[in-house]
Amino acid sequence: MEGSTAPEGKAALTVVAISGSLRRGSANTGLIRAAKEICEESIPGLHINHVDISDLPLLNTDLEIDGGFPPAVEAFRAKVRAADCFLFASPEYNYSISGPLKNALDWGSRPSNCWGDRAAAILSASGGSGGSRMQYHVRQVGVFLDIHFINKPEVFIKAYQPPSKFDSNGNLIDPEIKEQLRETLLSLQALSLRLQSKPANSG
Amino acid sequence: MEGSTAPEGKAALTVVAISGSLRRGSANTGLIRAAKEICEESIPGLHINHVDISDLPLLNTDLEIDGGFPPAVEAFRAKVRAADCFLFASPEYNYSISGPLKNALDWGSRPSNCWGDRAAAILSASGGSGGSRMQYHVRQVGVFLDIHFINKPEVFIKAYQPPSKFDSNGNLIDPEIKEQLRETLLSLQALSLRLQSKPANSG
Amino acid sequence: MEGSTAPEGKAALTVVAISGSLRRGSANTGLIRAAKEICEESIPGLHINHVDISDLPLLNTDLEIDGGFPPAVEAFRAKVRAADCFLFASPEYNYSISGPLKNALDWGSRPSNCWGDRAAAILSASGGSGGSRMQYHVRQVGVFLDIHFINKPEVFIKAYQPPSKFDSNGNLIDPEIKEQLRETLLSLQALSLRLQSKPANSG
Amino acid sequence: MEGSTAPEGKAALTVVAISGSLRRGSANTGLIRAAKEICEESIPGLHINHVDISDLPLLNTDLEIDGGFPPAVEAFRAKVRAADCFLFASPEYNYSISGPLKNALDWGSRPSNCWGDRAAAILSASGGSGGSRMQYHVRQVGVFLDIHFINKPEVFIKAYQPPSKFDSNGNLIDPEIKEQLRETLLSLQALSLRLQSKPANSG
Repeated sequence: MEGSTAPEGKAALTVVAISGSLRRGSANTGLIRAAKEICEESIPGLHINHVDISDLPLLNTDLEIDGGFPPAVEAFRAKVRAADCFLFASPEYNYSISGPLKNALDWGSRPSNCWGDRAAAILSASGGSGGSRMQYHVRQVGVFLDIHFINKPEVFIKAYQPPSKFDSNGNLIDPEIKEQLRETLLSLQALSLRLQSKPANSG
Repeated sequence: MEGSTAPEGKAALTVVAISGSLRRGSANTGLIRAAKEICEESIPGLHINHVDISDLPLLNTDLEIDGGFPPAVEAFRAKVRAADCFLFASPEYNYSISGPLKNALDWGSRPSNCWGDRAAAILSASGGSGGSRMQYHVRQVGVFLDIHFINKPEVFIKAYQPPSKFDSNGNLIDPEIKEQLRETLLSLQALSLRLQSKPANSG
Repeated sequence: MEGSTAPEGKAALTVVAISGSLRRGSANTGLIRAAKEICEESIPGLHINHVDISDLPLLNTDLEIDGGFPPAVEAFRAKVRAADCFLFASPEYNYSISGPLKNALDWGSRPSNCWGDRAAAILSASGGSGGSRMQYHVRQVGVFLDIHFINKPEVFIKAYQPPSKFDSNGNLIDPEIKEQLRETLLSLQALSLRLQSKPANSG
Repeated sequence: MEGSTAPEGKAALTVVAISGSLRRGSANTGLIRAAKEICEESIPGLHINHVDISDLPLLNTDLEIDGGFPPAVEAFRAKVRAADCFLFASPEYNYSISGPLKNALDWGSRPSNCWGDRAAAILSASGGSGGSRMQYHVRQVGVFLDIHFINKPEVFIKAYQPPSKFDSNGNLIDPEIKEQLRETLLSLQALSLRLQSKPANSG
C-alpha cells in the first residue's frame, strides 16, 4: 500500500476522521471514505482512521465513575489521543454543529483534553450555503480545545443542488470536489508538519 | 395556585423549559426549578413546563420511519409545539452549545419545525465567562428555527466562582440571581405578548 | 403618493436605511434605492429614509466634548433615534461587518443608545456566500443594541455570480430579488407593528 | 538593547501591533506599550512595531485609483506586509470588532492580501466579559485573511472592574496582566517559529 510509506524525512501522520451525520447514506461519511481513498492512492504519509461516534451516549458527567468513562467513550478518547491531526466532515444542522458531532467533541474534551495542539480541517456537505455557519462554530470550539485549523481551502458542498455530487449511498462522484478534497488533505498535512516541527532552541 | 390565573385580558402562557445539562445536580436544571417557583409565586399567567431531553436518541434521520419519529422524539416534539415560548438553561461546553441541547433543538426542527415564531430566553450557569459564547450560538440557531430571543437581561452565571450560588443539589440559593431570573421571565412574558398581538388589520 | 398613507389603524413607520458600502456604484446602496421605490409603489405605511454614513469620523471618544458629539455624528444619531425600524444593506468584508457600517453602529450606540427596542432587517449583496457570515455578526451586535431582527426571509445576494443582478451604477435589475426585497419589507413592517403593540395591561 | 538579538538559530521576528481604540488614554494602546517593553526587556528575538491606524480613511474602493491606494493606506499596507506576525489589542464595541480596527483589517486585505499565512494574538481590555465576543469575530475574519491565531492564553481584561489595572494614561500597572501578556508574546513567538519552519522535503 503506497500510502503507508511516509516521504523521506517526514513522519507518517494519522488523521482521525469524524462524520457528524449518523445516517447510513450520509454524504459527509462518503467524504471521509473518499478522503481515505485519496490518501491511499496519492498522499504518502497521510492515513485516515475513520472513527465512528454513533455509540457514544449523550454527554452526562454522572456517567464518569471514579475518573473512568463508559467503555464506548474510553475507546473513542483513546483514538482521538492517538491522532496526529483531525478531519471533520459534517452537515450543518440549524446553522450550527450537529448534535452528534458536538457530543463527540465534548466527550473528547473531558479532562484531560484529548484534542490539544493538533491541526484539523473541516468539510461540509449540507443544504443552504453548504455548511459555512457550522464550520465557524467548530472553529470557535477549536479555540478552547486548542486545535489549529487550516484556513485554505474551505470546502462547502451544496449537497442538494444539481448536478448530483454523491450517489444514493453517499459516495462522492464529483471529480471537482475530489480535487478540493485532495487539496484540503495536502493543506492539512502541511500544517501538521509545520506545527510538529521543533524550532532550533525551543526546549 | 395564584400563578395559574392570567392577568385580565392576557392569555396564560406556557413556557417550555429545557436544561442543556443531564447530570442530576445540574445548576442549569436548578435554574429551571427556580424559574418554576418564581412563576408560581409571583408571575401570573406564566407557567413553566420543564421538558426532559435525556431520553432522546442522537439525531439520525434513519430513525424516522414513514414520516414518524421514535416515541421519545414524538413526545418531545408535541410538547415543543404546544409551547407559547421557550426558556433554555444550559452550560457552555467548549465555547458552544452542549451536545444534548443541540440534539434536542435539532429533533424539534425536523419538518415541520416545532419551534417557529415564538419568543425565548436563555440562561447559563457555566465556567469561564458564564456561558456567553454558547448563548450567541443558540441565538444563531434561533434564526433558522424562527425564534425571537429577548435581548435584555442577559444572564451569565459564573457557576464556579465563590460565593456558592447553588447548593450541592443544584438548587439556586443566590437572591440576586433569583431577581435576575425574575426579570428574565417578565421580559420573556412581555415579548411573547407583543409577538402574539395582532396588529389592527394584519389579516 | 400612495406610500405616504398608512393603512387604517396602523401608524406610518419610518425605516432608517443604511448602506455599509461607500462606493458610488454600490449594489447595496442600490438595494436601498430599490427598497424605497417598492415602499412608495406598494407598501403603504412604510417609508425609507436613506441615511448616509460616509462623513462620520472613525469612532474616537476623545471627539465627544462636554457630552456632545461632532456635528456629523449628532445629525446621524438624531435620524437613528427618530426611526421606527432599520434596514441594513451591506457587503461582507472579510467574513464580517464592513468597517464603515460597524463605525456607524458604534456611534449610534454611544450613551444614550439610539437603536434600542426596534425591529430591523439585513440585506447583503456580496461575494462568496452572499454575505451570510456578516449578517450573523450584525445580529450579535443587535443583542447589545437591543434590536429585534426579522428571521425570515434572509436575503443573501451573490453579487458576482452571473447573470447580472445590478447594472453598472448598482441599480437592482433582477425581478426575483425585487420580490425578495418586497417580502423582507413586509416582514419588517409586520414585526415592527407587533413590537409596537401594547398588550392590554402592560402599563 | 538586549531584545534586538535573536536567540541562536532563530530569526528575529517583527510583530506589527495594532490598537483598536483611537483615544489618547486607551488601555488597549497601553497594552501595546507594555508588550513593547516586555519584549525589549526579556524576549530576545521579538520586536514590537506599533502601527497607528487613526489616519486611515473609511474604506471606500473608489479611493483606489489605477491600482494605487491613498498614501496613508499604502504606508499602512507596507508595514503589515513586512510583519512576521501580528498583535491586536482592542476593546469590544457592541459585542464585535471596533470600527477602526475592522477598517484597518479591511484595508490590509485589499488585493493582494497583506496579512496572509502568519501567526497572531489578540488582547482585549474592555467592559462586560473583557472582550471575548470581539475576539471570536476577529478570529473569523482571520480565516479569510489566512491568519493563524494562538489558542492559549486568551487574555480578556475586565478594564472597568476594580482594582485599577491601568493608570489614567492607559499605562498597564497590574503585574498579573503583565505576566499574561508575557506568556501571550512567548506563545506568539513559538507559533510563528513553528509556522515558519520548513518541513524536510516540503519543496
